[in-house]
This record gives sequence, C-alpha cells and structure tokens, in this order.
Amino acid sequence: MAESESSNQTLKSEKPKPLRCIVKLGGAAITCKNELETINGTNLRLFCQQLREAMARSSVAKVFGMDWSRVSGDQIVIDDVEEPAFDLDTNFIVVHGAGSFGHFQASRSGVHKGGLQRPLVKAGFVATRISVTTLNLEIVRALAREGVPSVGVSPFASGWTTRRRNIASADASHIGEALHAGLVPVLHGDAVLDNLQECTILSGDVIIRHLAQLLLPEYVVFLTDVLGVYDRPPTDTNAILLKEIAVDEDGNWSIIKPLLGHLKKEVEITVAAHDTTGGMETKIAEAAAIAKLGIDVYITKAGTVHSLRALKGEVGNSSVPDDWLGTAIRSAKQVRPL
Amino acid sequence: MAESESSNQTLKSEKPKPLRCIVKLGGAAITCKNELETINGTNLRLFCQQLREAMARSSVAKVFGMDWSRVSGDQIVIDDVEEPAFDLDTNFIVVHGAGSFGHFQASRSGVHKGGLQRPLVKAGFVATRISVTTLNLEIVRALAREGVPSVGVSPFASGWTTRRRNIASADASHIGEALHAGLVPVLHGDAVLDNLQECTILSGDVIIRHLAQLLLPEYVVFLTDVLGVYDRPPTDTNAILLKEIAVDEDGNWSIIKPLLGHLKKEVEITVAAHDTTGGMETKIAEAAAIAKLGIDVYITKAGTVHSLRALKGEVGNSSVPDDWLGTAIRSAKQVRPL
Repeated sequence: MAESESSNQTLKSEKPKPLRCIVKLGGAAITCKNELETINGTNLRLFCQQLREAMARSSVAKVFGMDWSRVSGDQIVIDDVEEPAFDLDTNFIVVHGAGSFGHFQASRSGVHKGGLQRPLVKAGFVATRISVTTLNLEIVRALAREGVPSVGVSPFASGWTTRRRNIASADASHIGEALHAGLVPVLHGDAVLDNLQECTILSGDVIIRHLAQLLLPEYVVFLTDVLGVYDRPPTDTNAILLKEIAVDEDGNWSIIKPLLGHLKKEVEITVAAHDTTGGMETKIAEAAAIAKLGIDVYITKAGTVHSLRALKGEVGNSSVPDDWLGTAIRSAKQVRPL
Repeated sequence: MAESESSNQTLKSEKPKPLRCIVKLGGAAITCKNELETINGTNLRLFCQQLREAMARSSVAKVFGMDWSRVSGDQIVIDDVEEPAFDLDTNFIVVHGAGSFGHFQASRSGVHKGGLQRPLVKAGFVATRISVTTLNLEIVRALAREGVPSVGVSPFASGWTTRRRNIASADASHIGEALHAGLVPVLHGDAVLDNLQECTILSGDVIIRHLAQLLLPEYVVFLTDVLGVYDRPPTDTNAILLKEIAVDEDGNWSIIKPLLGHLKKEVEITVAAHDTTGGMETKIAEAAAIAKLGIDVYITKAGTVHSLRALKGEVGNSSVPDDWLGTAIRSAKQVRPL
C-alpha cells in the first residue's frame, strides 16, 4: 500500500488514511429499470446497510440517523442521543449510475452527442441533471438514514469537464479533503460541458476509473443486478460466471477461473437496452484499466452475501474464494498461477 | 462596463458577454418561514416567471419546459416542439438562502461553530446539506419548468472552503464556463469545510459578495419578504423605507433618500429569529461591500412590480424612480446629489 499512501499525502499536509474502497453502485441495482424514475427502495436500503456494516469497526455501534429532513411530509426524526458513539471507517467513495433516472432525458435530447446551443439539447442537459441529482439526493439520504455521513458531489458542480467525452479536467482535491474530514463523497454520472462538442454525459464508470487513478484505493467494487461477468447473457441457462480475470500491462485480459478451454477471450456480453453510456462491455474495459494499476476490482450482485464480502474487502489478495460468487478482475502480476 | 468585460475575459479565451445580474433569492421570500421545510410555491413560481421575463429578448417567446422529471408521481411532460425558439439573455446567476430549510438542522447541531469530528456536528453537517440541496433542487426545477436553463451548483461540491467562516478557496471558473454555455448557475448557502474550525455554514450573502467581486455583474438584486431596508422594524406602522443608500470608499454608508434629518445612521433593523447566518444587518454589510465596487445593489420584495423592474435593471443609473419601492445601495461616487 506504499504507493497508495504517498499519492494521498499530496492532498493534505497531514497524513491521511489511504482510501479503502471506491464503490460503483449500478443504476440497475437500485432503480427499477423499466419504470421511469423509480427507486428500488428495498435494494437501496440493503446496500446502505451493507456499506455501513463494511465500515463498522465494532458490531454494536448504534445507527445514528443523519437525514433530518421530512420524508413525504412526515415529521423530522432526530435521535435523542446527544453524542452517540461513531465507530465507522468511512474511507469510502460511492459513485452511482443513473438506472431509470437521467437516461430517458439524455437520450430523448441527445445530450451525449453534444450541441448544447440547440434548444432541445440545452433543455435535455437541464432535464438530465435534474433527474440524476434527484437520484443522488435520494441515495445520500438513504445512506444518511443508515448513519453513513454521506455528501452529494455532482461532477458538473465540481467543474469537471470532458474533451470529446474523455475527462479533460476533474480536480479531486476537494474529494480528498471530504474523505479526510470523515465524510463519504457520493458522485454520479452527470451531464457536463465538453471542450470540443459543448456537452456530453460523463458516465459513472469513467468517473470510477479517474478517481481510482488519482486516489489509488485498496480495491474497487462494482455492484450490479447480476452476479458478475458471464461468458454469454446471464439469462441463458448455460451461462458460466467468470470468477477471475487477469489484465496484463497492455490492458489485454484473460480468463483465469474457471479454466474453460473452449472459451474464447471474446465473451458475449449483455448491454442493457436503456444504457446510453455503455453496459457490461464498458464496465469490463474500465475495470481492466483499474486492475492494470494493481487495484483489485470485484463485480458482484448488490444486496447479497457476496456484495457484503466484496465491500469488506474479504475476497482475498491471492485467489478468489470458491464460495464467493462474482468476478474479480486484477492485474496479471498479482494473480497466483493455478 | 470596461472593467467587467476584461474580468470575464480571463475565464475563457472567447469573448464572453459580461455578467448581467446576480440575484439573491432570500429564503424568507420562497419558503414558509414558520413551517419546517415548506416551499411557498406561489412565490417561487412568481419569481421564476419574473426572472424569465427579465431575460426575454422578445415578448412572444413560448416557454419551453426543461424539467422532464416526475412531479409527485405525475407523468413526465415534454413539449412536442422539436426546436423551439430560445430567445433569452440567460446571463444571470441565482443564489438562494435556506429559509425554513437547513437552519433547523444547522442550529440543532451547531455546524456554524465547527467541530466536525463530533458525531452530532457531523450528523448535522450531513443533515444540513440534505436539507439545503433539497431546496436547491426544487428551485432549479421550478426555474426549468419556466424555461430557464438552470443548473444546481453546490458550494461544497464545488470544493469551496472557508477559513474561520471567511471564504478561503472558491474558484468560480466553472461558473463562468456555465454562464458562457448559456446555463444559469443556481447556488445556495451550504455547509462547507473550514480550514481552522473544521466546518461552518457559508451563507448565500457571503457567496453573492464573492461572486460579485470575481465576476463584476452590472447589478445585484436581493429579493426578500419586505420592500427593502427600513429605519425601524417594518412591522412598525411609522417605519420609513430607505430608498437610496450611498456607500463611500471606506464602506461607510449614508441615507440619501428620503432626506430625513432626524435619522441616525444606525437604523434599527430586524433579524429573522431563525436566521443563523445573519439577517438584514449582514445583508446591508454585504450589499455595501458590493456597492463599493461600483455595482448597484437593489433590495426589494419578491413577486412585486418592483422586483420585476429590479431584475430587468430598470431602476436606473442615476436617481431611483419615485414609483419604485425598494432600497438601492450604490457607490457614493455614482450617486447624483439631490
């Protein structure tokens, strides 16, 4: 972890703890993807509870709710505890996708294709930001209710810009400061200004890669609505879960586990129909770019025992445990030969 | 305007239009101050309509709604117009206060006094941000529904920090870029990190002064729930509206209009009971600091003919019109002697 520590030290003169984990909360995992702007409340709550459990240093810590706002007209609830115990290792960043928020507005207007000066695109830019920030606020609130000190950080509001859809400017020093202060930044895919095409959509997956490069977390977890990466669409009954993928220095990847001689490297992968920012293919490419840095990436299903183990960093440093269901993507250098 | 133009040019190599106006939308004007987290929908809608009217270059422009999200479970409404006319001079910034949002959470936990590592303060920091960003989202949506291309920009997410409550770091280049792209940034009072006391509340009034110094708008408008600054509490039937105040180079201010020999400089001023960031006194001090720069400041009541004239910049460059009710605060150099 020496490399990680030295990177974080540049953010602040005091020695901060190294970043433990960046979590990508897939839009498909916490929204109802076929119902416009509908949160899957059960899954979201389960995620927040698991994140809190992964952060907890002791098992007895009482949850101190931090959402003191009205919920659907209800009264505000504040715990009576004046100074509750707070025993969480909060050194996490959450980045979420849009799911059934934002995509409709973005694709209806073509925000990702640019041309902000066209009235329809400008309206779509505004409408997309309204939709994704609505989701962001709900996720921040759900985390706060579980006692996770979450703070919404919109990429657009952070001044992040792209150049032909690639990140051009994305200072993360304020994210480092928030982490150092014991807050959990919650970012999201967002509509942003683009230097060449005026505007575009910056996806959560691209944000994850950028933050991983800057902040060098111990591990990265992608939570989605399937167990991981399969050799064919997971709806196919013969689909095989790829448990471990190694990425070499050139970014090429190969399947380590299971050992399947007949498998081509080019596995068939599913892309959600409404996903304008790329589906599983983008995810593997972004995950591979992170693994190349020597950072383990775990892709698994939200709200399962497997996601809790991944969030806790218990999937292991050498070989992936047999009873863990998910896909680990890691640098070829760190993969122990079978 | 030469000074203003040269200042804005530093933001972008292309020559941007000078900033026309920064509007402070007082929390008291758009929330029900005695009802926790309750928006005054009528006043908010009226403000959005007036801002749009002040921006309109032609009177026939059709409103193209830009909020394509569900409102309380309703269906999403998108106008069928493929490429509507868009004839607005959008060169405005909106900064709003918190009103009945945020203040309760901040004062319950003492966020403005610092000490973020205390669990109660940390919870209050999170809760305050949830409350004020909820209000911000609603204001952005209300503006978007009136066809104003609004984008929420949280000071905390922008990485703005304070040092013992004064602004320490607050880069506004991304706000200049948003303006240049024809978007209307909507900022708000926020909980932020403080270099000396860990955290505090950055008020909307302080944000206004900072942005005015950086971006040199033609004029600044403070919209509140009373007509302007009075010589005593406006609930007093003998209260006299101070229509014009001059500020000298040292920041001292004197009442120009009406000419009232008996008036001391130290007018009695009202402060709303729940306002943790300072009331009318702070407002006058911040307004005076802006006026010193040669920028006219108009304080008036939201949702009136007077606020519309102020937003349009029609209050005049020399003497304030007799039929305009409000308080103009301007540099002594620019005040024509009566």
